[in-house]
Amino acid sequence: MKRSKGKLILSASAVAIAALLGSAAMAQTGTSGAAAGNDWVSPTGMDNNQRYSSLDQITAANVGKLQVAWTFSTGVLRGHEGAPLVIGDIMYVHAPFPNTVFALDLAHDGKILWKYEPKQDPNVIPVMCCDTVNRGVAYGDGKIFLHQADTTLVALDAKTGKVAWSVKTDDASKGATGTDAPMVVKDKVYVGVSGGEFGVRGWLAAYSVADGKQVWRGYSMGPDSDTLIDPNKTTNLGKPVEADSSIKSWQGDQWKIGGGDTWGWYSYDPTLNLIYYGSGNPSTWNPKQRPGDNKYSMTIWARDADTGHVKWLYQMTPHDEWDYDGVNEMILAEQDIAGKARKLLVHFDRNGFGYTLDRETGELLVAEKYDPAVNWASKVDMDKASPTYGRPLVLPQYSTEHNGEDVNSKNICPAALGTKDEQPAAFSPKTGLFYVPTNHVCMDYEPFRVSYTAGQPYVGATLAMFPPQGQTNMGNFIAWDARTGKIVWSLPEQFSVWSGALATAGDVVFYGTLEGYLKAVDAKTGKELYKFKTPSGIIGNVMTYSHGGKQYVAVLSGVGGWAGIGLAAGLTDPHDGLGAVGGYAALSQYTALGGQLTVFALPAN
Amino acid sequence: MKRSKGKLILSASAVAIAALLGSAAMAQTGTSGAAAGNDWVSPTGMDNNQRYSSLDQITAANVGKLQVAWTFSTGVLRGHEGAPLVIGDIMYVHAPFPNTVFALDLAHDGKILWKYEPKQDPNVIPVMCCDTVNRGVAYGDGKIFLHQADTTLVALDAKTGKVAWSVKTDDASKGATGTDAPMVVKDKVYVGVSGGEFGVRGWLAAYSVADGKQVWRGYSMGPDSDTLIDPNKTTNLGKPVEADSSIKSWQGDQWKIGGGDTWGWYSYDPTLNLIYYGSGNPSTWNPKQRPGDNKYSMTIWARDADTGHVKWLYQMTPHDEWDYDGVNEMILAEQDIAGKARKLLVHFDRNGFGYTLDRETGELLVAEKYDPAVNWASKVDMDKASPTYGRPLVLPQYSTEHNGEDVNSKNICPAALGTKDEQPAAFSPKTGLFYVPTNHVCMDYEPFRVSYTAGQPYVGATLAMFPPQGQTNMGNFIAWDARTGKIVWSLPEQFSVWSGALATAGDVVFYGTLEGYLKAVDAKTGKELYKFKTPSGIIGNVMTYSHGGKQYVAVLSGVGGWAGIGLAAGLTDPHDGLGAVGGYAALSQYTALGGQLTVFALPAN
Repeated sequence: MKRSKGKLILSASAVAIAALLGSAAMAQTGTSGAAAGNDWVSPTGMDNNQRYSSLDQITAANVGKLQVAWTFSTGVLRGHEGAPLVIGDIMYVHAPFPNTVFALDLAHDGKILWKYEPKQDPNVIPVMCCDTVNRGVAYGDGKIFLHQADTTLVALDAKTGKVAWSVKTDDASKGATGTDAPMVVKDKVYVGVSGGEFGVRGWLAAYSVADGKQVWRGYSMGPDSDTLIDPNKTTNLGKPVEADSSIKSWQGDQWKIGGGDTWGWYSYDPTLNLIYYGSGNPSTWNPKQRPGDNKYSMTIWARDADTGHVKWLYQMTPHDEWDYDGVNEMILAEQDIAGKARKLLVHFDRNGFGYTLDRETGELLVAEKYDPAVNWASKVDMDKASPTYGRPLVLPQYSTEHNGEDVNSKNICPAALGTKDEQPAAFSPKTGLFYVPTNHVCMDYEPFRVSYTAGQPYVGATLAMFPPQGQTNMGNFIAWDARTGKIVWSLPEQFSVWSGALATAGDVVFYGTLEGYLKAVDAKTGKELYKFKTPSGIIGNVMTYSHGGKQYVAVLSGVGGWAGIGLAAGLTDPHDGLGAVGGYAALSQYTALGGQLTVFALPAN
Repeated sequence: MKRSKGKLILSASAVAIAALLGSAAMAQTGTSGAAAGNDWVSPTGMDNNQRYSSLDQITAANVGKLQVAWTFSTGVLRGHEGAPLVIGDIMYVHAPFPNTVFALDLAHDGKILWKYEPKQDPNVIPVMCCDTVNRGVAYGDGKIFLHQADTTLVALDAKTGKVAWSVKTDDASKGATGTDAPMVVKDKVYVGVSGGEFGVRGWLAAYSVADGKQVWRGYSMGPDSDTLIDPNKTTNLGKPVEADSSIKSWQGDQWKIGGGDTWGWYSYDPTLNLIYYGSGNPSTWNPKQRPGDNKYSMTIWARDADTGHVKWLYQMTPHDEWDYDGVNEMILAEQDIAGKARKLLVHFDRNGFGYTLDRETGELLVAEKYDPAVNWASKVDMDKASPTYGRPLVLPQYSTEHNGEDVNSKNICPAALGTKDEQPAAFSPKTGLFYVPTNHVCMDYEPFRVSYTAGQPYVGATLAMFPPQGQTNMGNFIAWDARTGKIVWSLPEQFSVWSGALATAGDVVFYGTLEGYLKAVDAKTGKELYKFKTPSGIIGNVMTYSHGGKQYVAVLSGVGGWAGIGLAAGLTDPHDGLGAVGGYAALSQYTALGGQLTVFALPAN
């Protein structure tokens, strides 16, 4: 129905847009200070991953009057993880595959200044394990950085949306995909990779923000030359590591398809100049097929930001038997423990333990269960003199290795998606508490033998997921004291809380629910102060910013991700997707697919 | 990635849902009275198509405090025309192809009671001329009626969503599609057909609500036995029509592929027992190919609701040369003209004339331009003694027939999508004014010869669309006095107003904009009182209801339809789609695809 006739009538006024952007305060590369302010420059608010804002116009006293200020549809369905950025007058909103990015004019109700929609081979969709998610963009040096599903890292001019440079970081034909939000520190942009269910060997890499040249790449496993481990300098729980410690923990060449992917949130300490992140599960999910500790899957990493060299590391779940993917974020906070000021790293792992470490040395300070349901290990061995120091003490009845292939191990808690997955926690320096969105889900897990074919699923287990026995809630939103390893308060939720939390100086904590509610609770007591039903289930992260003197709170709706994969991919049976749908099948009674931003503010008077 | 193991964890509690619905007040079949009340039972509020509500909790004085109460995503992108229904505690929300229908529990923030998603052949999408829209469902006899894209008319149990019966109304393989909202009157459900761009001969049909049996079908063209015209009884402007007047106005058998489709809104007068609606453009758009008046395309019809017999008719645009599709709604109102109480029918035609007729007799009372830009005809001849009485007086420079095939006729106003398209107007008995969402768009039009192949486009013209010369606004929202044929006030809008209006007893009139704003204006003065940016452009119709003693206003967002076809179908060039995209290409600077319901209310205190 095309016939090339007629005339051009209206077109975007490029001149007007350029003028508008010229007046916007463009933030400098990287983020410093302890809290996010008027802008929200990095995917997690600040490089410390605290997801804490100093804004305090919205308080525990007035948040009950919150209203929806404006809304925006991304034009994309399926799971919307991550959060928008705000820099000056512009908000940057991303979407799942095809990874559309919008620059919205905050001074004009979100008018679209530019839109970037990459053309990607749709064949990447089947190799995205857990929905077609993307966790957001990063900003630095006047550029917006996006890691596309097809592992293209692209730098867009923040004013025009034009591609400044792009580079392929890995090979989607082998199952490697880009789902993570990059992080910018100084002159580098950091990015990792997804693909643990396809045997993709994980890495973290630094690219030059100026031209996209790779500066360094550190693999999760392989010889020291690949991992950038230096046996003379790198420590593990305070002790030097052996030479080639990674490949010694694998049978033969299995490390080459060993997983340990790196798609969580990255953090940075500017004083120590260290990057922190976690590596994921070893491939396959069938532990019998890969003897050894499978180093360094399931590991907390501290790498030099400039060189990638490993300062220290700590493997939380050696020889994983449950897919307790260790990618969750590392939150950097300053707290006193036993009267001593500490530079802390706090991490809520998929395996159900909340870890507190000294982030300078990697010393393990606290490791406690942050859900009482966790049962696969009795505890983490904290006895420094013990040969199993730092290791979880696994109970044999929940050991899928011990029970063996083709045996259904029952009632293991947590389920494979962990007591927490990628949904990031928040920290308030005012209360000293961490606010953690959690899954309260157990599983039956049955490993089976699988062979590796590049680009094909390499999973090797089937599972069923359900709430702990005798309970109905599949999630809790908790406040956690990382100094003691204790739950301070806990709010039950019907489904997993798969939304990133936000803590604010107004003593309000925000999170979203899979049914689609944005909730605001009292930071001290957990008392619910406000809730609103957004268009679709929330797996995005709540953020806040100030514009024109007014504080706004924003969140992406769009049910999906692992918890919402049933809705996102049209799977209606709890057994679908190797059992990934599980108890979440009931979500279809509450919400449908979407892709919307909802922005909240207090009323004018 | 499927392996059929594991166990069933959670399932919908059918018992609980049944109990809930048992307590909901189910409205009776049909709608009577003059205004919609707590419920919104028919697609247009009431069978008189006034789109007027007696609810007055939201007033011109307090509407400025309106807030978003809750939201819902349909999980479908592209154009969302129409509006939800509310019956008791349940809201029924529909979506474009695949025509999902949701029953939402108003007592529980829109929890999904049931969802119906028909499986339809996606090959129907390319034969939907102007996006994959659906204009909504109807209610009667405990059933929800949906006319699917594939022309399946389905009756769903309103409590369970189970299919009570379904029937095919036409043949999608020949280009016939279902886009209209059915209407229920007493024991019958009325439905029409789309397909004027595929040579589909239009019809209106009545089916039994009990079992889906066809009761009657009246075609827009053909022998009297097909049209249900009786030369002894049917009148045209007060005079009897000739026998077989339709086929006499066509060359040969052209009437068989002559269009005149019937996808607008239907209305009903219970005292006269007459159904009113309009028939659309003759096929093809190239007038040279179809000599004659092409009766009864472009016609206002009054049919007996029980038998389909034609009481009277009036052809507004004989031998259409511009695609001035006559399907727009007929609004039934009681007003005095020259001191005499009249049963009026008011109709805002695509051709730019606002018609006022006596709906009992079909007498033509007023025919005036409702946009000063309208230029293709000098006026409608109102001289009863004239041989051209009731016909528009066409100016030769804007006659595409006169100018001929392959000649580009310039600056014709309105454009093919008319001064108004399907977006329905509203009427307030309190102010006596009609509130009309309009297009303020002109075109260049070039007919070309085309041959008919069943199921293939049969368009025969290309066009370019743009605002009237020297102007930039492509729409106006106007108040109209149908007694005099005069504009009372007019609010310019950047784009066409493609959203149905709502008038209320609170003296507030609501409409949506293509950029996505819901706007509330003073019914008397047109003063803007409130606006809110919804997630996506609005082509849905605003409705209102009361639940738990509180008045709510709701509207579907989801840009698309003809005006938004560029965004909906991914066409970015104004020349795409035979020029259908036109000046609307600039819409992409304001909004992206969506599919969301936004529900508004006043704050609690």
